Amino acid sequence: MLMEDGKVYKIIEIVGSSPHSFDDAVRAAVKKAAESLKDLRIVEVVKFDGRIDGDEIVQYRARVKISFKLLDEND
Amino acid sequence: MLMEDGKVYKIIEIVGSSPHSFDDAVRAAVKKAAESLKDLRIVEVVKFDGRIDGDEIVQYRARVKISFKLLDEND
Amino acid sequence: MLMEDGKVYKIIEIVGSSPHSFDDAVRAAVKKAAESLKDLRIVEVVKFDGRIDGDEIVQYRARVKISFKLLDEND
Amino acid sequence: MLMEDGKVYKIIEIVGSSPHSFDDAVRAAVKKAAESLKDLRIVEVVKFDGRIDGDEIVQYRARVKISFKLLDEND
Amino acid sequence: MLMEDGKVYKIIEIVGSSPHSFDDAVRAAVKKAAESLKDLRIVEVVKFDGRIDGDEIVQYRARVKISFKLLDEND
Amino acid sequence: MLMEDGKVYKIIEIVGSSPHSFDDAVRAAVKKAAESLKDLRIVEVVKFDGRIDGDEIVQYRARVKISFKLLDEND
Amino acid sequence: MLMEDGKVYKIIEIVGSSPHSFDDAVRAAVKKAAESLKDLRIVEVVKFDGRIDGDEIVQYRARVKISFKLLDEND
Amino acid sequence: MLMEDGKVYKIIEIVGSSPHSFDDAVRAAVKKAAESLKDLRIVEVVKFDGRIDGDEIVQYRARVKISFKLLDEND
Amino acid sequence: MLMEDGKVYKIIEIVGSSPHSFDDAVRAAVKKAAESLKDLRIVEVVKFDGRIDGDEIVQYRARVKISFKLLDEND
Amino acid sequence: MLMEDGKVYKIIEIVGSSPHSFDDAVRAAVKKAAESLKDLRIVEVVKFDGRIDGDEIVQYRARVKISFKLLDEND
Amino acid sequence: MLMEDGKVYKIIEIVGSSPHSFDDAVRAAVKKAAESLKDLRIVEVVKFDGRIDGDEIVQYRARVKISFKLLDEND
Amino acid sequence: MLMEDGKVYKIIEIVGSSPHSFDDAVRAAVKKAAESLKDLRIVEVVKFDGRIDGDEIVQYRARVKISFKLLDEND
Repeated sequence: MLMEDGKVYKIIEIVGSSPHSFDDAVRAAVKKAAESLKDLRIVEVVKFDGRIDGDEIVQYRARVKISFKLLDEND
Repeated sequence: MLMEDGKVYKIIEIVGSSPHSFDDAVRAAVKKAAESLKDLRIVEVVKFDGRIDGDEIVQYRARVKISFKLLDEND
Repeated sequence: MLMEDGKVYKIIEIVGSSPHSFDDAVRAAVKKAAESLKDLRIVEVVKFDGRIDGDEIVQYRARVKISFKLLDEND
Repeated sequence: MLMEDGKVYKIIEIVGSSPHSFDDAVRAAVKKAAESLKDLRIVEVVKFDGRIDGDEIVQYRARVKISFKLLDEND
Repeated sequence: MLMEDGKVYKIIEIVGSSPHSFDDAVRAAVKKAAESLKDLRIVEVVKFDGRIDGDEIVQYRARVKISFKLLDEND
Repeated sequence: MLMEDGKVYKIIEIVGSSPHSFDDAVRAAVKKAAESLKDLRIVEVVKFDGRIDGDEIVQYRARVKISFKLLDEND
Repeated sequence: MLMEDGKVYKIIEIVGSSPHSFDDAVRAAVKKAAESLKDLRIVEVVKFDGRIDGDEIVQYRARVKISFKLLDEND
Repeated sequence: MLMEDGKVYKIIEIVGSSPHSFDDAVRAAVKKAAESLKDLRIVEVVKFDGRIDGDEIVQYRARVKISFKLLDEND
Repeated sequence: MLMEDGKVYKIIEIVGSSPHSFDDAVRAAVKKAAESLKDLRIVEVVKFDGRIDGDEIVQYRARVKISFKLLDEND
Repeated sequence: MLMEDGKVYKIIEIVGSSPHSFDDAVRAAVKKAAESLKDLRIVEVVKFDGRIDGDEIVQYRARVKISFKLLDEND
Repeated sequence: MLMEDGKVYKIIEIVGSSPHSFDDAVRAAVKKAAESLKDLRIVEVVKFDGRIDGDEIVQYRARVKISFKLLDEND
Repeated sequence: MLMEDGKVYKIIEIVGSSPHSFDDAVRAAVKKAAESLKDLRIVEVVKFDGRIDGDEIVQYRARVKISFKLLDEND
């Protein structure tokens, strides 16, 4: 998980959502990213927002940036 | 909840608080706004802070922006 | 906890972490600061990020700023 | 339109929308604000975004701040 | 003046002006806000600017954010 | 177009250009993104700039962020 | 128009205006800058705002940065 | 002082200083700019800082932006 | 007061307050810092805010950053 | 290398690293991006940071954004 | 080089370039500014970017702000 | 160097300088911090600037943030 020397990481931006909490929305984004990418390293929260219905937040959303290792061609 | 064509939304800034968590402070702000406004749409977190007593956070605060639909005069 | 007239406050920047949640990471930072400083007043969240292992966040981190009262020499 | 000495202005944040263009979305926000407020002075664009359907922008949105004169009690 | 638990605060944005100084422009904004709102708590300076005539500043302006307590319906 | 519960969105950054206007440059970016991606949702303008030749803008450019739905593996 | 090696560019900040549109305000700024400067290269939009009269925008304004090539003494 | 239609304004950045106060430092910047430029319109404060000697501020500094009207060639 | 070659400076963040003015609040922060630190060099204003009672600012606050020289071990 | 009319560019965010210098870390990010992408155009530095061991920086890191041309379907 | 009391400084924005390194690009900007201006004081880096050809940076660019003393009319 | 679970890190802000290069200025800041602190982890560049004499940069400066581990009382 420590960034190795000479390695290059890519950062993608993702919006995760959850009906329960902002933390859950971040976890949803990470889970989704992990379905198609390997060696995820760091998730950074860019923004929290949510959709309201009546007087309740019905969807918690987290815009995050996730970094992962780009494989060398010789790996 | 989807923004309708031609509709105009207003955004207000509010600070909610809770003795329990940052998520709760956001919910408190939404609940309060819903007492006097209708058609709330989105809540965005601007800042989280909190008051400390001793070594504990005794008040979680969330500064948020909340958007709601402005009614047409003919509505 | 209310800022007294004529008092001066110092602000330090700290990164707390937790295996459980962002709120917990903020609390960890406050707890640690309170071990060596007195009269802590406000904690502000600067940034949330986390380390990922596989498809899970294994370490929630909160970068925060904490203010505390600087004692007068006559205190 | 020039800001008079001693006058105080209030600033509100509004999101206007249009099916046609970003300029139109700004104009829609101004038009709406003028329905209930007098002495509007300046509109500042905070952000442009839009909703997409297929490969087209079907709703142009402008988040703006609008300032207007607060009346003196003696006015 | 200390933020009470469970209370919710609203934040408005105002531009005050003065022929004399930036501090005076902030005070003008607060005075004006206090005419129609109760329980003002904090004023934050967002921006200072001014109008020039010849080689003098003839109007000092302060854009500020002011927070005040939203009353509970049972208050 | 409304963000569905539990769905995850990805955000990409693109620069579109047009010889005619900034709005056109935004539309060009959306059109291009739609060639290879489905379920585009929101376009946000990050920056407008342009290339000048003589005293005219010969290329209007829009740097935008576009969000689109990430498909579930079971979709 | 491509930035040449070893060349140095200067950037100036200008506010253009138009009664018609934000794009026009940007073009007015570029036209004006081209009256006294040569080799203009890039215009970047810093901010859009406008003056309102009644319920209409009567002046669209664009604050822009414009870069142009500084001539070598040997040129 | 009101921005005229079709006029173009230039913005310059200046640091003024004073041994007395931040307001004075702003005024010094305006006074200096007025020595070589006409039709100054607005001064905006970008940053206040100062040099310290012992426990006193011996030089108050204000970094400001000042806008002034660019003359038409036919003026 | 001029930064010497090879010297290293540390920057601390402090909130000063005054019942009178923002300038005074900055001076209070500097005075306090000078009680325990030597070779203070520059103070930068990060933010001005204040506490309101009724329609008056009863406490002017300045959040500032102050730099001072770190002594070499051989000094 | 000059941005062609009507072309659309994509921007990706990458973290390069080097044991030697920040410039080298930027070059490493560009080299890696060029392994899988064609027509790279501009690299912008977003942030420099580094890992420390003892009193030395053992890994220089550069977070950069890189733009490259999206091919037309008919190319 | 120390800012003298009562002096006023102007700040200009310049883009320097070099085929070799970001530091060199900053030096090129300073060298160029010194050809036509006297009493340069401080250079601040605003942004680093570069043009890429193939997998190499062929032009390092530095956008900088440079301050210099404005002469008094009596100097 | 990897951030351990439950550990808390403190972040300090320092300005390093060098007559040679920006990289050297960062290294100077790290070297100095390492004289009095243990377990330094990450250095982040906040700002590069420099003092100019004639047409040369005679002092490269780097404002950086450095994080280091706060020891537990039981360590």
